[in-house]
Amino acid sequence: MKTINYTARVLELMKPSNPMDGKLLRSAEAEVAGLDDIPTRVETDTMGEVHVPADRYWGAQTQRSLDNFKIGGERMPVQLIRALAMVKHAAATANEKLGKLPKHIADAIRDAAAEIVEGKHDDQFPLVVWQTGSGTQTNMNVNEVISNRAIEKMGGTVGSKEPVHPNDHVNMSQSSNDVFPTAMSVATAYEVKEKLIPALKLLRDALEVKTKEFEPFVKVGRTHLMDAVPMTLGQEFSGYTQQVHNGMVRAKGAMVHLLELALGGTAVGTGLNSHPAYAALVAEEIAKITGLPFVTAPNKFESLAAHDAQVALAGMLKTVAVSIIKIANDIRLLGSGPRAGLGEIMLPANEPGSSIMPGKVNPTQCEAMLMVCAQVVGNDLGATVGGIAGSHFELNVAKPLIAYNNLQSIRLLADATVSFTKNCVVGIEANQHRIDELMRSSLMLVTALNPHIGYDKAAKIAKLAHSENTSLKEAGIKLGILTSEEFDKWVRPEDMCYPKAKL
Amino acid sequence: MKTINYTARVLELMKPSNPMDGKLLRSAEAEVAGLDDIPTRVETDTMGEVHVPADRYWGAQTQRSLDNFKIGGERMPVQLIRALAMVKHAAATANEKLGKLPKHIADAIRDAAAEIVEGKHDDQFPLVVWQTGSGTQTNMNVNEVISNRAIEKMGGTVGSKEPVHPNDHVNMSQSSNDVFPTAMSVATAYEVKEKLIPALKLLRDALEVKTKEFEPFVKVGRTHLMDAVPMTLGQEFSGYTQQVHNGMVRAKGAMVHLLELALGGTAVGTGLNSHPAYAALVAEEIAKITGLPFVTAPNKFESLAAHDAQVALAGMLKTVAVSIIKIANDIRLLGSGPRAGLGEIMLPANEPGSSIMPGKVNPTQCEAMLMVCAQVVGNDLGATVGGIAGSHFELNVAKPLIAYNNLQSIRLLADATVSFTKNCVVGIEANQHRIDELMRSSLMLVTALNPHIGYDKAAKIAKLAHSENTSLKEAGIKLGILTSEEFDKWVRPEDMCYPKAKL
Amino acid sequence: MKTINYTARVLELMKPSNPMDGKLLRSAEAEVAGLDDIPTRVETDTMGEVHVPADRYWGAQTQRSLDNFKIGGERMPVQLIRALAMVKHAAATANEKLGKLPKHIADAIRDAAAEIVEGKHDDQFPLVVWQTGSGTQTNMNVNEVISNRAIEKMGGTVGSKEPVHPNDHVNMSQSSNDVFPTAMSVATAYEVKEKLIPALKLLRDALEVKTKEFEPFVKVGRTHLMDAVPMTLGQEFSGYTQQVHNGMVRAKGAMVHLLELALGGTAVGTGLNSHPAYAALVAEEIAKITGLPFVTAPNKFESLAAHDAQVALAGMLKTVAVSIIKIANDIRLLGSGPRAGLGEIMLPANEPGSSIMPGKVNPTQCEAMLMVCAQVVGNDLGATVGGIAGSHFELNVAKPLIAYNNLQSIRLLADATVSFTKNCVVGIEANQHRIDELMRSSLMLVTALNPHIGYDKAAKIAKLAHSENTSLKEAGIKLGILTSEEFDKWVRPEDMCYPKAKL
Amino acid sequence: MKTINYTARVLELMKPSNPMDGKLLRSAEAEVAGLDDIPTRVETDTMGEVHVPADRYWGAQTQRSLDNFKIGGERMPVQLIRALAMVKHAAATANEKLGKLPKHIADAIRDAAAEIVEGKHDDQFPLVVWQTGSGTQTNMNVNEVISNRAIEKMGGTVGSKEPVHPNDHVNMSQSSNDVFPTAMSVATAYEVKEKLIPALKLLRDALEVKTKEFEPFVKVGRTHLMDAVPMTLGQEFSGYTQQVHNGMVRAKGAMVHLLELALGGTAVGTGLNSHPAYAALVAEEIAKITGLPFVTAPNKFESLAAHDAQVALAGMLKTVAVSIIKIANDIRLLGSGPRAGLGEIMLPANEPGSSIMPGKVNPTQCEAMLMVCAQVVGNDLGATVGGIAGSHFELNVAKPLIAYNNLQSIRLLADATVSFTKNCVVGIEANQHRIDELMRSSLMLVTALNPHIGYDKAAKIAKLAHSENTSLKEAGIKLGILTSEEFDKWVRPEDMCYPKAKL
Repeated sequence: MKTINYTARVLELMKPSNPMDGKLLRSAEAEVAGLDDIPTRVETDTMGEVHVPADRYWGAQTQRSLDNFKIGGERMPVQLIRALAMVKHAAATANEKLGKLPKHIADAIRDAAAEIVEGKHDDQFPLVVWQTGSGTQTNMNVNEVISNRAIEKMGGTVGSKEPVHPNDHVNMSQSSNDVFPTAMSVATAYEVKEKLIPALKLLRDALEVKTKEFEPFVKVGRTHLMDAVPMTLGQEFSGYTQQVHNGMVRAKGAMVHLLELALGGTAVGTGLNSHPAYAALVAEEIAKITGLPFVTAPNKFESLAAHDAQVALAGMLKTVAVSIIKIANDIRLLGSGPRAGLGEIMLPANEPGSSIMPGKVNPTQCEAMLMVCAQVVGNDLGATVGGIAGSHFELNVAKPLIAYNNLQSIRLLADATVSFTKNCVVGIEANQHRIDELMRSSLMLVTALNPHIGYDKAAKIAKLAHSENTSLKEAGIKLGILTSEEFDKWVRPEDMCYPKAKL
Repeated sequence: MKTINYTARVLELMKPSNPMDGKLLRSAEAEVAGLDDIPTRVETDTMGEVHVPADRYWGAQTQRSLDNFKIGGERMPVQLIRALAMVKHAAATANEKLGKLPKHIADAIRDAAAEIVEGKHDDQFPLVVWQTGSGTQTNMNVNEVISNRAIEKMGGTVGSKEPVHPNDHVNMSQSSNDVFPTAMSVATAYEVKEKLIPALKLLRDALEVKTKEFEPFVKVGRTHLMDAVPMTLGQEFSGYTQQVHNGMVRAKGAMVHLLELALGGTAVGTGLNSHPAYAALVAEEIAKITGLPFVTAPNKFESLAAHDAQVALAGMLKTVAVSIIKIANDIRLLGSGPRAGLGEIMLPANEPGSSIMPGKVNPTQCEAMLMVCAQVVGNDLGATVGGIAGSHFELNVAKPLIAYNNLQSIRLLADATVSFTKNCVVGIEANQHRIDELMRSSLMLVTALNPHIGYDKAAKIAKLAHSENTSLKEAGIKLGILTSEEFDKWVRPEDMCYPKAKL
Repeated sequence: MKTINYTARVLELMKPSNPMDGKLLRSAEAEVAGLDDIPTRVETDTMGEVHVPADRYWGAQTQRSLDNFKIGGERMPVQLIRALAMVKHAAATANEKLGKLPKHIADAIRDAAAEIVEGKHDDQFPLVVWQTGSGTQTNMNVNEVISNRAIEKMGGTVGSKEPVHPNDHVNMSQSSNDVFPTAMSVATAYEVKEKLIPALKLLRDALEVKTKEFEPFVKVGRTHLMDAVPMTLGQEFSGYTQQVHNGMVRAKGAMVHLLELALGGTAVGTGLNSHPAYAALVAEEIAKITGLPFVTAPNKFESLAAHDAQVALAGMLKTVAVSIIKIANDIRLLGSGPRAGLGEIMLPANEPGSSIMPGKVNPTQCEAMLMVCAQVVGNDLGATVGGIAGSHFELNVAKPLIAYNNLQSIRLLADATVSFTKNCVVGIEANQHRIDELMRSSLMLVTALNPHIGYDKAAKIAKLAHSENTSLKEAGIKLGILTSEEFDKWVRPEDMCYPKAKL
Repeated sequence: MKTINYTARVLELMKPSNPMDGKLLRSAEAEVAGLDDIPTRVETDTMGEVHVPADRYWGAQTQRSLDNFKIGGERMPVQLIRALAMVKHAAATANEKLGKLPKHIADAIRDAAAEIVEGKHDDQFPLVVWQTGSGTQTNMNVNEVISNRAIEKMGGTVGSKEPVHPNDHVNMSQSSNDVFPTAMSVATAYEVKEKLIPALKLLRDALEVKTKEFEPFVKVGRTHLMDAVPMTLGQEFSGYTQQVHNGMVRAKGAMVHLLELALGGTAVGTGLNSHPAYAALVAEEIAKITGLPFVTAPNKFESLAAHDAQVALAGMLKTVAVSIIKIANDIRLLGSGPRAGLGEIMLPANEPGSSIMPGKVNPTQCEAMLMVCAQVVGNDLGATVGGIAGSHFELNVAKPLIAYNNLQSIRLLADATVSFTKNCVVGIEANQHRIDELMRSSLMLVTALNPHIGYDKAAKIAKLAHSENTSLKEAGIKLGILTSEEFDKWVRPEDMCYPKAKL
């Protein structure tokens, strides 16, 4: 039996380039050389025979892709693999119901698919994102694994394609061209619903708690980064709360077109080789499996040829990222210091900032959040360029790229939002002393004097305070315009934080 | 012979290209420097006196901005100027209703504002986009023009601020910080509703007409740019129709947050200096004026400090652009030729392609559409960076940038869509001869033989036809597998365009 | 009281806002429709007769473009028009030298071209950017204007194409396909050299002056926005200086491929219809006219079909924009306050910030700079998408888009840099009082005590100072670890700003 | 001894979110639960004790980061880890030479660092990209691993920090703030030099071979996707060759600023705690180790606070990507068919396109290349936003993000270019039959008749041929304008591919 050096190949594929090739150390080649050969079996496709590792379920087409696309190390996202398995599961059921697939074959497919969904075979999907633009090779990877796993469970010979054929049975009434976009819809809709929206809710709720907690703190507002009229710290956080709330609304909006499934279009959108009742039926099955209200797309040509729903999703994710950048930026600026910054709030200390300076807490959660948001903005463009350059005639051929970018964005945004909320937002405390100190010193409070002493005298006080770097009260007394008591009575920042019927 | 003064030319070329030089306005130089040459009057602000051209309504703050921001030639979009005037009109009414503004002053403000909305004073707004990030200078420009125009009509002295004061009356209960974002919402919501959506509808409807018209043409489908199974040209156009239809849905979705107005937040979002009933009242007035269902924003801090609704709008516009790029690309590829391209459709000839080659019609409308869409994708990023880098504390200070990008995108997308529809889409004709020729020659039709002669024999036919570059029929006959009559009976592309209960 | 005709207003608002309506040009409508009202003459092209305004030099092809591309209001950049005229000038000379064009025709072409370069005919180029993707219509606009203007000066009949034919003479040995990219190279290289680099130099030099001026000011450094070890304000500005200096280097680097001209490739890059010596000769002429070292491109197929040099230019402009965003951000943050911000520097007051608060100076030049930089980042993407989606086979068809974005970016970046330098950077002053106050209060100075009292005792002092919100000195004395004199001797921030051989 | 469930944590961290949570299968929690507890040891930092897995070299700060940043699964790129180890190696040498570090400690550090560079400890660096924006936690991870590995080899107690202290020895004369950007420079410069440029050279050389091979094939040129005048297939490929060649030039240009190292700036750029001779010395050591001409940066403030060199690198990578998109697009369009496309070239068949249609070869390498290039365009923006939003005062805090994006881009671009070259470009064959067929049918050849029969008669022939869909020759004969022999003599496409002195 022929053996291939499979471990070496996989290692090579998964290994980033070595910056030290031929210099300080051995080359990457050398690193992976001399590994044990492993047993293989023969699989076939229409181009002939291919040796695959004996202990893997994948077949010829997966193996050819491994050989032909040694690009990067980013494997097809596991969420997508599992969504593909769900599609196979649903298609088996629909085909059975339409009398095209015997129950025992359908059962075998569903069993194997369920194992993949359960994560039992994650190591059977070695293909990278950078393959054929239709994702055909990953669709075949799933077909091959389900086929061989089903055969194995039924006591057949792995690789024999009997009694469960990867194309004729597992891929029945399907084409990569409608399966892959369907899996993209399923995976992204699921992640938005189950990961992103809950993460945003966590953040929104935490900000809402802070909004109430911080309501009593009257502080200097800032516009153009410059001192402005007073507001409460709670009001400031209420704006953040609203931003995240709106983000949740936007996330729900982006799901509308994700819930329309391409399945039933087969190769070019016409539904060739599928039953007229199939498209609606299989969408119903997918809805059942996932618990999300998927429906069959009103026009399959659109669903295969363009990925506008994914581009729209990318744009939504970007918008949410832009919202959160603002919040993270404000929080790190408000918490800057401890002495030479604004210092109005204090962030939790999660790790040593410096062994010298106990007061130094770096806003690391804000920074991680910022980086994630920047990545999401970049990913939006990656998906967009996939939409622009990949869509010709009946098929967009940037499907894996688009799926990869959007799934990464959703996951990063959700994870980082949770981390930011738990490790930063909930622990933020107001620095009453500093807030008051800045508030009291603000020249903007002079506005409150206008009704009592007139604009001109008020302006004189403000100008003197600014030029002599004193307080408004001191300046007012020095100018003989008001008394200390009058100042304290008239200048009440807490009264300046809301509209008034009588000014 | 005259010789060129290249030094002069170089000097000229080094000057910023001013699209208004000596034309619409006197040159920027003249406006600010050569004031000896034109009559001026003195206007004042808190920093002192400024000379402004005697025949202009603007005042000191506008003039200072002209002096301080000699950047580019892009003036603040006129849609925004007019939206600002509508805001002033509505605010005057709300203030009058709340008893803060006498009727005769409110009337005077409304009259002047109406003239601006009607486009009578477009040359009174010379400021560029690249000014203060809050748009304060343009807000003051509008205040100054309304004030002086109202004064003039009431027989007062222009520049005297009596009896209509730019700040105290025209800007009453307002701050640039809430006025400008309100105008952004009004202008963009209006343009989306009144320009973009109708333009998309025009295109969608034209594509729908073509969908029906092209239904009889059975043609080669293409995936991966390669020949695939048959479909109708009408089906191909139905995908485009769906894309544009979805774009209309997305456009409506993006309006949701645009309809929430910042007005009433004043300087930092607290509503300082405004009546508690004012925010809702003024939103109602704006809704009345514009006919759009504007409401007051639920949280003014969000409305001033972030422009997420505008970033979301930019993302929507980008998505629509990506859809249309696909359509324009397909159309120019399908129409390529006349001899060495695909040539399945013929585009209208709007202008000479070449004086040599009568058949050459360049797809110029597709190209203009493509360029507009690329611009929209770039503008999305411009607005996004404005959202990222401009939002700190209580005020986003990239407002003019964001407004400029989104308003340009809406206009270009709407205009180009109309042009593309009228000058290209409606005139597209199917090239029956070419469609049939390609269809007949397609090796993919072999699929139809499978049920009759089996996969293996069908594959033999296809392989022979490919290697000998003959037709399937010829190959089949040569191989003795079928007769000409059988081929014609079994291979019917028109039967391959839809799902089938019995295959 | 007059009431507003809102129907009229709505109609008005629905019309594209035409920045030239009734002003610089007659309205677009008038140009193409109401030709009853203005005198016209008949011009012809291969598609037949067209009426053009009698007082314009343009001909049939320009007029058709006006009719067919009513998209937006962005006219082809004047720098590009002038560069096209320079190309025509140089081509006439090259053709004359090669014996293909009689001297009197060449002279006439050069005279008319020179007038365009001098800006005498800016109103003769009404076409928008959003036209055919090769820019053919603008090339023909230039050909037509030169032809008719030359004919006029020679006493011929405008529109007769005698004795100077727009195609045969003005466009001799040229195609739009090589002329337009050549003009793009000429215009952008010229603008980078003559506008951008000098503007960057102005800023760099101003920052260098500030670097020296601010060297004596020892201040708190900040990392993660948090207080860190000391440095001088001059050192901080030296970083900015270096950034801008590097930007100049990058700008020069981006010119390398801009200096390679497409001219001589004619229609597809082969040079069909041109003399073998022509390409090099005409590049030489262009170099002479412009004073820039242009050469003929080594491969014309690349020059016509792709615009990588322009995409690289866009990337360079973006990099410079990112550099300057950092500088503008730092400056507005360092200048924030006056009371509740950092306040280490004071920015010049160019306009009233607020009528209430004399001390409020908004960093408006920083904000304009920020918006310009965001626009440049967006324009980079616009040009990039033009490179991606416009390049097929022998011709990139997003030429006007790419030119428009890059020329706008160069101009905005140059103008804004000059404005920012003159109106902000040169006037920045250090706030000695505030710098010292923050420096003295910094807990980071505790680092200096380590060699004298050991890390543990130093840490104790820092912790106490932080928790009790006192100074290090007070904490040290309170703990009995050091005296006031010792503290003053040991803690010398100015010694912490440089490497030391002995620590 | 306390144990932590380490395997579970790592699995959780590395596992993408499960699309089936709570539905078809067990939750991710359940999947990783119930794993064996593993032995731990105690490590300490200034915040106290932390349990770390007993079999790992990392310490307290790494462990805290694992706990605090459960975001995504993207680990810090291994190229960066190895570059950090090289920096530690070089710093140990420089410190030893300056008399600050005893030889035996320096040796121990160098030994451990060399092992990391050799890839022996890749599993000791579990931290994700989304951590503190300075990369401090990864710098500490490297410090901790080197320290503990060195201690282990010297027979000490892992975790004791004796005799090799992670901060005092491994991080001597360094700060994360200068170490991390130095590693970014080293890793990216190395990858550009050793991976990207060789990959581009491979592609360029392959294209050059094709240029020569394809020189004899005279074909229809295409502009606006429409038929144009003739050229050779070799000329077409020469344009691609030039594009890639220019890309190599651009890659070299982008290295200029990457070769300037931040090391020596320490915490804020001042070089506090380092020897005046250190910066230059350590750069020299790094140059020695890597074989690349690194030097110390002229201004350390710029190197820490901004990452303009990385933003410029991202822009360069984007430009190269845009070039290659054009080439890949052209190749897949030229190879489209086999019957209903252009079909001028044939691409190698690497995998089955379809089991039905033997002639169908999908251009999968082009598609993978396209997706990689789109990713690079998106990554450019990710890095750019990191430059925009991360740079404040003395430190850019988007370092890991920027490094991640640029290193991914370089690797993908290099890998995909190699794959595209080997699996596609070298195997491209010209389809002589098809090229000739299209060439002969082209109406553009009529241009060649002009000198012989005049423009008017030539136009008549072209018009007739177009309207009757016949050949030019047939039309000419039918019109009685020329004979078959004359046509063959006069119309010689191969003479139309070059400039001519006599036309």
